[in-house]
Amino acid sequence: MPRARDLGLALGLLPPGPLNAITDIAAVRVGHVSLVEGESVRTGVTAILTHERDPFREKTPAAAFVLNGFGKTCGLPQVAELGVLETPILLTGTLAVPRVADALIDWTIERNPDVLSVNPVVGECNDGYLNDIQGRHVRAEHVFGALDGAAAGPVAEGAVGAGVGMTCYGWKGGIGTSSRRSDQFLVGALVLTNFGQRDELRIDGAPVGRELARIAGGAGVDGSGSVMVIVGTDVPLDARQLGRVARRGALGLARTGVTAGHGSGDFILAFSNAEPVPHRPPTGLLTRRVVAEDGPLISGLFQATVEAVEEAVINSLLMAETTRGRDGRVREALPLEPTLAILRRHGRIANP
Amino acid sequence: MPRARDLGLALGLLPPGPLNAITDIAAVRVGHVSLVEGESVRTGVTAILTHERDPFREKTPAAAFVLNGFGKTCGLPQVAELGVLETPILLTGTLAVPRVADALIDWTIERNPDVLSVNPVVGECNDGYLNDIQGRHVRAEHVFGALDGAAAGPVAEGAVGAGVGMTCYGWKGGIGTSSRRSDQFLVGALVLTNFGQRDELRIDGAPVGRELARIAGGAGVDGSGSVMVIVGTDVPLDARQLGRVARRGALGLARTGVTAGHGSGDFILAFSNAEPVPHRPPTGLLTRRVVAEDGPLISGLFQATVEAVEEAVINSLLMAETTRGRDGRVREALPLEPTLAILRRHGRIANP
Amino acid sequence: MPRARDLGLALGLLPPGPLNAITDIAAVRVGHVSLVEGESVRTGVTAILTHERDPFREKTPAAAFVLNGFGKTCGLPQVAELGVLETPILLTGTLAVPRVADALIDWTIERNPDVLSVNPVVGECNDGYLNDIQGRHVRAEHVFGALDGAAAGPVAEGAVGAGVGMTCYGWKGGIGTSSRRSDQFLVGALVLTNFGQRDELRIDGAPVGRELARIAGGAGVDGSGSVMVIVGTDVPLDARQLGRVARRGALGLARTGVTAGHGSGDFILAFSNAEPVPHRPPTGLLTRRVVAEDGPLISGLFQATVEAVEEAVINSLLMAETTRGRDGRVREALPLEPTLAILRRHGRIANP
Amino acid sequence: MPRARDLGLALGLLPPGPLNAITDIAAVRVGHVSLVEGESVRTGVTAILTHERDPFREKTPAAAFVLNGFGKTCGLPQVAELGVLETPILLTGTLAVPRVADALIDWTIERNPDVLSVNPVVGECNDGYLNDIQGRHVRAEHVFGALDGAAAGPVAEGAVGAGVGMTCYGWKGGIGTSSRRSDQFLVGALVLTNFGQRDELRIDGAPVGRELARIAGGAGVDGSGSVMVIVGTDVPLDARQLGRVARRGALGLARTGVTAGHGSGDFILAFSNAEPVPHRPPTGLLTRRVVAEDGPLISGLFQATVEAVEEAVINSLLMAETTRGRDGRVREALPLEPTLAILRRHGRIANP
Repeated sequence: MPRARDLGLALGLLPPGPLNAITDIAAVRVGHVSLVEGESVRTGVTAILTHERDPFREKTPAAAFVLNGFGKTCGLPQVAELGVLETPILLTGTLAVPRVADALIDWTIERNPDVLSVNPVVGECNDGYLNDIQGRHVRAEHVFGALDGAAAGPVAEGAVGAGVGMTCYGWKGGIGTSSRRSDQFLVGALVLTNFGQRDELRIDGAPVGRELARIAGGAGVDGSGSVMVIVGTDVPLDARQLGRVARRGALGLARTGVTAGHGSGDFILAFSNAEPVPHRPPTGLLTRRVVAEDGPLISGLFQATVEAVEEAVINSLLMAETTRGRDGRVREALPLEPTLAILRRHGRIANP
Repeated sequence: MPRARDLGLALGLLPPGPLNAITDIAAVRVGHVSLVEGESVRTGVTAILTHERDPFREKTPAAAFVLNGFGKTCGLPQVAELGVLETPILLTGTLAVPRVADALIDWTIERNPDVLSVNPVVGECNDGYLNDIQGRHVRAEHVFGALDGAAAGPVAEGAVGAGVGMTCYGWKGGIGTSSRRSDQFLVGALVLTNFGQRDELRIDGAPVGRELARIAGGAGVDGSGSVMVIVGTDVPLDARQLGRVARRGALGLARTGVTAGHGSGDFILAFSNAEPVPHRPPTGLLTRRVVAEDGPLISGLFQATVEAVEEAVINSLLMAETTRGRDGRVREALPLEPTLAILRRHGRIANP
Repeated sequence: MPRARDLGLALGLLPPGPLNAITDIAAVRVGHVSLVEGESVRTGVTAILTHERDPFREKTPAAAFVLNGFGKTCGLPQVAELGVLETPILLTGTLAVPRVADALIDWTIERNPDVLSVNPVVGECNDGYLNDIQGRHVRAEHVFGALDGAAAGPVAEGAVGAGVGMTCYGWKGGIGTSSRRSDQFLVGALVLTNFGQRDELRIDGAPVGRELARIAGGAGVDGSGSVMVIVGTDVPLDARQLGRVARRGALGLARTGVTAGHGSGDFILAFSNAEPVPHRPPTGLLTRRVVAEDGPLISGLFQATVEAVEEAVINSLLMAETTRGRDGRVREALPLEPTLAILRRHGRIANP
Repeated sequence: MPRARDLGLALGLLPPGPLNAITDIAAVRVGHVSLVEGESVRTGVTAILTHERDPFREKTPAAAFVLNGFGKTCGLPQVAELGVLETPILLTGTLAVPRVADALIDWTIERNPDVLSVNPVVGECNDGYLNDIQGRHVRAEHVFGALDGAAAGPVAEGAVGAGVGMTCYGWKGGIGTSSRRSDQFLVGALVLTNFGQRDELRIDGAPVGRELARIAGGAGVDGSGSVMVIVGTDVPLDARQLGRVARRGALGLARTGVTAGHGSGDFILAFSNAEPVPHRPPTGLLTRRVVAEDGPLISGLFQATVEAVEEAVINSLLMAETTRGRDGRVREALPLEPTLAILRRHGRIANP
């Protein structure tokens, strides 16, 4: 299955990094465990590790923006207060959040036997259309698998990890990623997509959703879902600045057409892995670098964020295959040929 | 000069109201005073009145979302706390905010001689490229003119009122408006546009900015500006719900390509004029209607907001004429013929 | 053990309700399960049910204020977005939050078999000084016990339920409650106290902590903890108004001397059970009553909140008995006689 | 007139700085212009300069907390976004905010002739009880007088500057200040007090308000006002950390008894002048020092903030003299002898 760039799409103005993935940021790793069992287990877990050292002992500057808070992500109050992550970021299905958070506590204690308090950060979308969500099938071993299997390099996309059971713009969605680079920075985005109404979908501005709905029907088919957006960068930003980056993540979603319907819990979490903060600072004052906000660098980061998020969403659609789940339900993959025809008709990709 | 609909553009999925303007909402009125004097005064003031009664004695439920707070809008803390406006909304150039706010106090006291406290709400963008902004040429009489001249009916757009000196996507910007309606609601947007980098502009998804920049140059021309978005509706919403609407305003901006650069103060203010709140409530408990949030109505309002904001921005560009200002500077209008050609090439409007 | 009123203390200016407890609010119920096992299990769970009907089908208007977000409370983003609770509120030890949340999902599904999404709200303080916190000994059966055993009437205080292992101002803390009433309203507070430095403690303004530290030592003994504050009322308030109430909860804490040290996760959650919001609203518009904010009622609610929270904290101290926990650690009860002597010396209670 | 320390009061646990004033922080300066004219002009303006260099070219890290947003302070959205002040902080009467802000623009342009955008920060309380507030008598010359006359050294307190017409706990209020120091930091607070109900007043925990009301009557006399709190420190903090400091300001207010009534706009603004941020950073990355948050220093700052704010409020009361204003209204000074008697009775000061 092709990614957006493979089709000739060049979303935005900035160039992607070598992998066009969040793992273009040095030391960022992603791991997936997919659970596809019997007729009704269609779920999984995805782990994003922000750097290669212990996340608790070297905390990662971070901030969140909640575009639509109809969601169950845990861990955000402490991120807002202290401006750091102290665990990897995990993504899963809605009702599995507590079990995944509990496993993340296990994992942290295993590595830091004296920990009496840790703030697990777990995001979610609702895979209940295809998955037996009430069963909460993600167990600790799956969480450990995603964490321990996390790797640099290309990131599997589509119906994988937390994305196994998700729906995006009425088609099969899931995991997508993209990146942008300049001389000065790398920005990467990873999304878990489960949102959007079919006829709203835009690909590089072309009204693919509306035109596909004419062919395929289901204009109003709706994930009734959510989206989790993870944005990372390798330049040093403090939590306030990362909050600014996180708000731009919403603009990237919007370019794909979304209007953030009532039931869609839309969360954006931004981090910088340039300079972790030590758990036990050796001195009373820390020396930190941050981006100077009067220069062009910060606006470049914002632009890169918008573009990487946009492309990550499109990749999540293009890379997701048709999936059959509980009660015989099927979520179709975005039909490639009609999509290409629409993109050509709108001048978004060249005629063959 | 044509509005977007006149060109055959049909942005979004929902139909506009009869005027395709914020004044489609019953009782909403808009007034402009434009100041074009000599070589260097290119500014003005725009007033939005949310209903026809006294705004202080009958307060209007409202909420704001700050996408990028690099701006000088006054009055927002009280709106956040109490969830109401108690003055009309005024828009002007950055450094004129205090003088306009002071005139709004005069205007309120004139109508309510016993008032000892009032919260003027004044938004701004920076018209300093074309205008002698340090001169703060907007005086109380201009404010009164905009307020007293405010009217229902079609709204003047482009380089008018607060929009006289503004720049949008590197072209002349200013005031734009649009609306959406369904069986159940009307949503209107009015924008003051002074934001965006030339090559980012999208019109109905087509990469007009990038392609125009190839022709006209100035890819990086930048308003370094801001945008004020006013969204109104005629269905009853409380302040929390209006905050949800306001956040969707950012998604409408994003559809036109913006990445909310560092220097752009991007504010969205949403109001409902369905049921004003009395200044002196007659009883200890008020009975209020609000939209039920589990039904489709609230998502429809969100979608309408996104679409109306998107179209209002495009109208602000299409309706703004080339303006010469201080130091011989010129801000060109968006060139219509090349724009139409691009839109045709991308299948956004029909060939003639 | 005496409550504050039993000692002759009359904190604040407003009278308490008949039970001087959060259960003075009609239909509010509280349940505790305490876990005291062997040498090292000193923990528990406390449930607050906001009304007598199903909390998912009839949602409770609510809002939170985070005074210090160094804490792991889950469920707040959705409360902020939608302005309602859809589960009971559970309190427990820090690392037990996910398991308690998971049990709350079970409990909800048991009562609503078609639920695919629910937002469990679980607050916490860190009982790791006395308790084997890594063991996460609270199991689903304990959660069900607290929920199903919840009752109207007097509320057990001190080292009970979630309070079993907590420390407050260097002494044994835990659960406390209080209420205030007027002709027009009832306000109740329930706190889980695990915060404060010994020498900061004030009781009805008297510097009990400082003077006790002279006698008992340990001026700097510190719970390094947190506090959870639940405030309820029987007058109808919307979420914005409840946010105002929640912020006043912090003022009540402050009256007892706290300075909200870095490590103390201080969360306040306010609810009104006057008019639940139906899960499936029968119509597109709801009619809601809310307190008129220009009258004295709202300020009375604020005053009542401050006073009830202050007294609830003091009750949590007075009612908690000396507790021995893991590794032979002991947390002493606030010594009553010296405390009474100090209160007499400062004119806070009469001489015997 | 005595300050709190002169009476033998020792509020809190930490020692004050040498002046027990915000000006203990090196380079901080305060200036007042008081306007007392005829029968009805009882107002003024107070300026706080955070350091000795140009505030626009060297911006001061800052953050605000809004305890109760029923107020008209301008400039906060940009402070929230960028985390810096770029003007001095000015305080005045409510309706004078725009004129004072306009004068602050003048003052900035005078010193920086190329400025096209600046964010004036002006706080306010409502002095309309004693003052002809509608007259907005503070003119630009008064603003310049306060700014240019600002000085290090002792700070005039009570009915001075912006405090001329204010009321606190039903008695004459106005300006107060205090500071706290340790080996590692200085924290200073300056308050403009215009809040509180008479019977709520606590001085060092003693129920002075309640007992005075028995003597003097007027239990419910109410400033219906507001409070502005400015907290400064000389240790380097970033904006997120300053937000934490600002929230503690509310706890200091609470120790004096306040319940933050509906009509009281209660704003806290915290700054650090340790390391200003250059307007035109010389490089793309800045190196900044910040307090390490896992050590005791940050909690010490919080404690110092609470204590300095508490004492500043009490100083504002003790130092304010009886003031006669418009329509023959009189606001009495806090009666010293009865207050001392109450403090002695409650063991807060020694018997003579």
